[in-house]
Order: sequence, then structure tokens, then C-alpha cells
Amino acid sequence: MQEKYQELLNRLLEINDLNSAAAVLNWDQTTFMPAGGAEARGRQLGTLGRIAQEKLVDPAIGRLLDQLQPWADSLPADSDEVAMLRTARRDFEQATKIPPAFLGELYGHMAMAYQTWTEARPANDFARVAPYLEKTVEYSRRLAEFFAPYDHIIDPLIDNADYGMKAATVSAIFAELRAALVPIVQAITSQPPADDSCLRQYFAEKDQDAFGVEVACAIGYDFERGRLDKTHHPFTTKFSLGDVRITTRYDEHYFSDAFFGTVHEAGHAMLEQGVNRIYDGTVLGNGTSGGVHESQSRTWENIVGRSKPFWKHFYPRLQARFPMQLAKVSLDSFYRAVNKVENSLIRVDADEVTYNLHIMLRFDFEMQMLEGKLAVKDLPEAWRERFRQDFGIVPPDDRLGCLQDVHWFGGPVGGVFQGYALGNILGSLFYSQALQAHPEILSELEQGKFDTLRSWLVENIYRHGRKYTAPELIQRVTGGPIRIGPYIQYLKNKFGELYDL
Amino acid sequence: MQEKYQELLNRLLEINDLNSAAAVLNWDQTTFMPAGGAEARGRQLGTLGRIAQEKLVDPAIGRLLDQLQPWADSLPADSDEVAMLRTARRDFEQATKIPPAFLGELYGHMAMAYQTWTEARPANDFARVAPYLEKTVEYSRRLAEFFAPYDHIIDPLIDNADYGMKAATVSAIFAELRAALVPIVQAITSQPPADDSCLRQYFAEKDQDAFGVEVACAIGYDFERGRLDKTHHPFTTKFSLGDVRITTRYDEHYFSDAFFGTVHEAGHAMLEQGVNRIYDGTVLGNGTSGGVHESQSRTWENIVGRSKPFWKHFYPRLQARFPMQLAKVSLDSFYRAVNKVENSLIRVDADEVTYNLHIMLRFDFEMQMLEGKLAVKDLPEAWRERFRQDFGIVPPDDRLGCLQDVHWFGGPVGGVFQGYALGNILGSLFYSQALQAHPEILSELEQGKFDTLRSWLVENIYRHGRKYTAPELIQRVTGGPIRIGPYIQYLKNKFGELYDL
Repeated sequence: MQEKYQELLNRLLEINDLNSAAAVLNWDQTTFMPAGGAEARGRQLGTLGRIAQEKLVDPAIGRLLDQLQPWADSLPADSDEVAMLRTARRDFEQATKIPPAFLGELYGHMAMAYQTWTEARPANDFARVAPYLEKTVEYSRRLAEFFAPYDHIIDPLIDNADYGMKAATVSAIFAELRAALVPIVQAITSQPPADDSCLRQYFAEKDQDAFGVEVACAIGYDFERGRLDKTHHPFTTKFSLGDVRITTRYDEHYFSDAFFGTVHEAGHAMLEQGVNRIYDGTVLGNGTSGGVHESQSRTWENIVGRSKPFWKHFYPRLQARFPMQLAKVSLDSFYRAVNKVENSLIRVDADEVTYNLHIMLRFDFEMQMLEGKLAVKDLPEAWRERFRQDFGIVPPDDRLGCLQDVHWFGGPVGGVFQGYALGNILGSLFYSQALQAHPEILSELEQGKFDTLRSWLVENIYRHGRKYTAPELIQRVTGGPIRIGPYIQYLKNKFGELYDL
Repeated sequence: MQEKYQELLNRLLEINDLNSAAAVLNWDQTTFMPAGGAEARGRQLGTLGRIAQEKLVDPAIGRLLDQLQPWADSLPADSDEVAMLRTARRDFEQATKIPPAFLGELYGHMAMAYQTWTEARPANDFARVAPYLEKTVEYSRRLAEFFAPYDHIIDPLIDNADYGMKAATVSAIFAELRAALVPIVQAITSQPPADDSCLRQYFAEKDQDAFGVEVACAIGYDFERGRLDKTHHPFTTKFSLGDVRITTRYDEHYFSDAFFGTVHEAGHAMLEQGVNRIYDGTVLGNGTSGGVHESQSRTWENIVGRSKPFWKHFYPRLQARFPMQLAKVSLDSFYRAVNKVENSLIRVDADEVTYNLHIMLRFDFEMQMLEGKLAVKDLPEAWRERFRQDFGIVPPDDRLGCLQDVHWFGGPVGGVFQGYALGNILGSLFYSQALQAHPEILSELEQGKFDTLRSWLVENIYRHGRKYTAPELIQRVTGGPIRIGPYIQYLKNKFGELYDL
């Protein structure tokens, strides 16, 4: 059995290597590649993806999994081998349910849809990309149907990123969250807006970069096993446990974009750098779900990176780097500025409080489009109407409305957005556990020390990789299922004090 | 037949994509990769190489080639399809003659030998790496034997890089070259050495970089389809026709290293950027031989880049970038400095005249080691003795002697070095043809114009890729076989004037 197990691991490692190679090509494409390389790069990525897919659906893997099952059944339920086989089977079944021809069609379509979106968005031309989005909705439905039966057609798509979650669970959580959030948003937005003009001065890119690197190092992102580069749409990518890279973009006239973006990606990367090294290159060697991943980027970006204790330590350092801009701005003013709450049009720029409403809107529309209740042609108007209801403002055009996010134009409709809100909820849930175990974390933040927090996160979350599903991990770490209490409490405490609610 | 031909091209394109992906991973490893990524990167490269090799030796390719042969025989001999099939068959036969198990063993051994060399060289510890080199010689012999029969055991290794060349041809050319070179070297080195102190001042990296980019652009390296990065051991790499990258390294206390290195690599890259675009991704889509490739790096580095007309145009620009260092140095002094001839220890730093003697020494030792006439343990002493004879100096240690080059420690013994000297010969041979066709090239160089020269090279050499073998190409372009006359004439003219011979 050990021999068969090793054969399975070798086959999966080969697939991992192909996917890692593709990740390097992708990273290069979005950071350093000259324009002339685009055409061949697309084809090279297609080749790597196709070969990896062929190897993943090889019936020999199914046979090995079947042969190893009795052995797995004889092992302790919590052993790594059992988790490895369970996860490998899940990946295998997921992959084999989708016909290769469909996948080829889908990728081909998505490449064209993405390309059209990159041109249609700046031109504010929804009509141009609408036929592609219609097809994408159709492909997304067909994709979901390979996984029938399901309760809701979005369930298989959610399952892919947030295994174990369903439309019903997510909707229930979102309803509860909305009920708690709306009064907070209303209380805040009925007050005069915070002044964030201190963030909207000239900050030279190289100084922003140096400060971002300083903070990423300090919180524990390991530059010996990673690097930070510039790109258009920031992301984190992993080639191995020893090479987890982050990217950012700089706006020299707005401090928050690059800085909080860098800390956000560093959070994703620290999770990946923290996975148990014996899982590297295996099916357990990554974060376990979209929601759990996002919980960590948001913990470091928001819970830590936008907190008063954090800035008590780092603000004098930031002032020293930007004396012209910040010498006369008090810590308190700066802290208010980085936590300004307002009804705004763009999700990625939204504050901690209103952000989730942006997600709920998208999640509802995804369900409605997949159900066939919202036609793509009616999306712009539906977006404006819902925006008026939820935020009291209306996007002046589709660029600032339904064309703003890449998601529906770069992949299927459904399965991703919910993870961002789940991440907010889980971030606070995990963090409250860390604080319970180590109340000294708060005073350590004031000293620019992050070891206790990071060690707790590594020990309880990061090192497990995909060994536990998100629901299992949440149960292990918090003693119960996902719940919004700690998140709402966090928001009430923080913004209650900021806005004197 | 068209269908079968297309199937063959698709299979070869898939292999090309895997090799291109590996090239990206290699480039990343030597430019930007953090230290932590090394272990997994080695494995990922191994996986890509193994899959590409498996696909290359797939008997289906052999069957397609056989089935397509009658069709090829019916086509005009000079058609692309015929060249494509002939080259694909050569690659296929080359690959299938080597057992996969041997290749695995060889790669494993070379990785260890290389690693040991990186430690042994700075420690001047030849004894430590000698057992590896002994094994490498043995592996190189076995590698050659897969291609028996041969006239000389080094022939199959030469054939791999310089198809159509043999030990006998190369030795004859080298003997003739030596007879012509030695008197020139003696005449020059009996004079007082040139003063190159103007090159050995402080030149800030960023200014060197800017000047290197300016010149690379001017001579025709296309940055829309390439980029220049820093590395330890400069190289050129191609991911596709639209993405051919060069690398360099900077010594802030010596001007020549980065500058001529950049122009050298730009020469390699311009050849690759100049290949006919319909060959991209096919077996014809690269330079045809080591010698032809090196002829172009050396044409741009030496024949153009170290010429008086070139510096008539660029020297004032260089002075403007480095006024403190060069304002008081005349063009003539600078020109003499970049063309200083001397007996020196390190091949890569050698001047145009003595360079070939460094190659002949290595080529002779390669033959003797493969023949079993020179034992590895005797190499250091043989190196010192030969150096005394050829250069009148003796390396004080093995770092500056037989440990200086990576070649014998990073790959088989035999097959590479001869190409560097052939490149010198071919560079002048081709250039003399270009001048015959376009005598205006010389006056254009003085104006910083390179279009006529580059267009001629593209038209006559670059665009053909591998369509013609090196001997065929030389015949086409020069109306005869490889010959040293124009090279010797070039050296006599240039250095005769410089040293008043």
C-alpha cells in the first residue's frame, strides 16, 4: 500500500509541478512580460493547463484511490494520509465530472469575454460585453449541472471555492449580517464624513514601496521565501512553500491603495508560507477555502492594519518617511482617515462596514442570473436600482456599476464573491479566539510585535493547509460553526468609538 | 497528408510550449527567484523536462515522420515543409537514441557536479570536483557512443551544437587559425600594453544600464519583444518570437563587463527576434547552430561594438553620461582601451585576438579527455603547461585555470567551446559579405545607423532560423564553405592599425 500511496503522491506532485509552472508563467505575464510575449504565452498556459488536466483525470488515479481506500479506512481518521486521500478524491471527482471538451470551450469563451471586457469597461459599453456575459451565465449553469443534484444551482460553484457552503447557508448568514449592518451604516452616514485628505497627497512610489516592505516584513511575510512586485491587479501566487509572491500597484496621489493592498496580499501569502512543510507540493499544501484565505488577508489588512494599536507603532515611522505630508497630521486624524466609512460605488475601495453590502448585491444577482430570473440585459438597471436602495446613491455609468469587477468576465458567474464576506466574518471569529487565548496580542501590536498573533494563526489555521475543510477548521478553532457575532461586535466596538455611536 | 502534417506540428508545438515554460522558470530562477524557491524549482524543471522528453520520443512522432516522408519527397527541396520534416526527424532521432534512464542519470549527476563546482571554485579545490569531472567524462563518452559510428568520439557532441562539423574539420580550421594568430599576438604583446585605466573608474550601475539600453535599442534589439535584467551569468533566452530576453551583470568599477556583455547578448537576441514569424514555435524557430549564434553576438559586440565608427557616434554620448570619468579621455584613447590585447588568464575577459587560443586549449583538452589520453587528475598541470606555452604566463591557481568555466561542470565535456571560435570566424565571414553588398554600412555606423547591416543579417541569416544547417547557410550566404581568410584579414586590418604592425 505504501508503494501505491507513493505512486499516487508522485502523480499528484507532477500535476502540482505543472500547475506551479503555469503560475510562474502567469506571474511573469502580469509583472515583467513584454507586450510581444502575450500571444505565445496564452498558448503556453493553455498547453500546461491541458496536460495537467489530462493527468488529473487519468483513470489510473481513480484506480489508485479505490485501491487505497481500505487502507485509508484502517488509519486514524485524523491522520495526514486520510486527509490526503480524501482531498485527492474530491479533486479527482471534481475534475472528472467536467468533460474536457466543455472545459476547452469554457476557457476559449472566457478568454474572449475577458478581452472584450478590458475594452468595453473603459468605453462604458455594457452592450458590447453583454452577449459574452449571457454565454458565461449559460456556461456557468452547465458547469453547475455536471454536479447535479443540488439544492440551488449556485451550490456547486460555491462548493468549488468554499467547500461545504451552500446558497441557503450563505443567504441566511447574509440576511443576519445585513440586519446588523444597515443600522450601523445609517448611523455613521448620517454624520458628517470623515476627512481623509491627508491620504490624498503626493506619496512617492519608492517611499511607499519601502514602507510597504517594512510593514510586510514586520508582520511576518518572509522575503527569503517571496518577493513584492508591481502589477495592474494585485494578487498573491504560490510556486512552492519556499516561493510565495505578492504584488501591488501604486497610486502616488493616494496612500491607501498600495499600502493596504500590500498588507492584504501579505496576509494571503503568510497563510501559504505557514502551511506545514510536509504538505508542500501535495493536495493539502494550500489554504483550505476562499473564505478562510480571505479571512487572513482581511485580518492583516483590516483588523491589524487599520487598528489604533498598529498605527500607534507605525504612524511615527510613516511620518518620518513622509514628513512634508504627515508631520502635522495627528495619529487620531490619520486613524480616522484610514477608517473612513461612506457609501461608495467601487467595491475594492469600500470600507470595512459597507463592503459586505457590495458583496450581497453581487451574490443576489449571481443567484438570480443563474436562476434565470435576472436577464443579463437588465443587469445595469437592476444594479442602479439596488444601489439606490442599499447605498442611497446611483452609479453615473456602468464603469462604476456592473462593469467594475473582472469576476463575471474572467470566470464563471458564481462561486467567488461570497468568500470575501465570509472572510470578513471568519477573520473576526478567528481573531476573537486568538485574543481569548492571548490577550497580550493587543499590547504587542502597539509595540509593532506580531509574533504571538502570527504564531497562533500558523498553529491553529495556516499549518493545516487543506487538511481540514473550512467547516471542520472553524469547528476545531472556535468550537462551533461560522457565526457573525464576533464580527458584528468588532465593527460595533471599532466604529462605535470612531463615530461615537 | 495535410492533416498528418498538422498533427505533427501540433505535437511539436506542445513540446515547444513545455520547453518554453521551462525557459521561463529558468530565467526566473536566475533573475528574480527568492532563495527559498530553489528546491521546488529544480523539481519543477525536472518535471517539465521529463514530460517534454516523453512527448518527443513518442513513437507516434516517428510514425508520422515516416508517413509524411513520401509527401516530403514530392515537394520542392527548398520548401519550408521539407526543412520542417528534416529537422524534426533529426531532433527525433537525436532524442530517441539516448535511453531515458541514461538521461535521468546524467541530469542527476550534472546537478551534483555543478553544485560541487560552485563550492570548489571559490575554494580553489580542484580535488573536490575532480571525481565529478571524471564521471562527467565517462558520461560524455557514453553519450557519444549512442551515436556510433563516428570518426572521433567528440563528433556526436559537436554535431549536437554545430551540426555537420567534426573534430577533423574543427582541428584543421583551428590549426590554420593558430598559424595566423600567433605572429599577430607576438607582434602585439612585444609592444608596451595599451592603457585601459579609463575603463576602470567608477561607473554607476544605473547609468551603465541606461547607456546599455540606449545602445541595445539603437542597434535594433526590440524591447517591445524583450527585456534586460540583471543576473550572475548573463545569457539570452527565448520564450517565443515576441519575448526574447537578455541579461547582464554590472561591475561598477569596470565599464566593459556590462556594456559589451549587453551588446553580446543583444546580438544573440536579435538573431532570435529576426527569425521568420511563420517558424515561431516550430522546430525551425531558432538559430541554426552554436557557431552561427555566436557569430552574431560577436558581430555586434566586437566587429560593430568595438569599432572606431561605432564609437565615433556613441563616445560623445558616453562622455555626456560620464563626464567626470571620460570628459578628458580622447576617443582614440578610449578606442585603444576597449581593444587592449594582452595575454590573460580568463577566457571571458580575453580580447578578440587571444580569445581563440583560449578556445583551442579547451578543445584540445576535451578531445584528449574523451580519448582517454588526458586523465582528469592531470588536468591542472596540463593547463598550466599549455598556458605557459600559449600565453607565456601561468595561472597562479586553478580558480584562474581549469576551474574558471562552468561548461565541464554544468554539462558534458565536448560540444560547446568550438562554437565560440567558429563564431568569431563566421562573424567576419558574414560581415565581409554584408560590406560587399552594402559598402555604405561603414559610414552608417559612424552615424549610429544600423538598419542596413541589420536588415542584411535578418534577410540572409536570421529569418531562416534552422531552415538551413550551418554549412548550408554558409554556402548560401558566402558561396563557399567556412574559411578563415576574412577573419584574419579583419584582425590584421584592425589590430595592424591599432598597434602599427
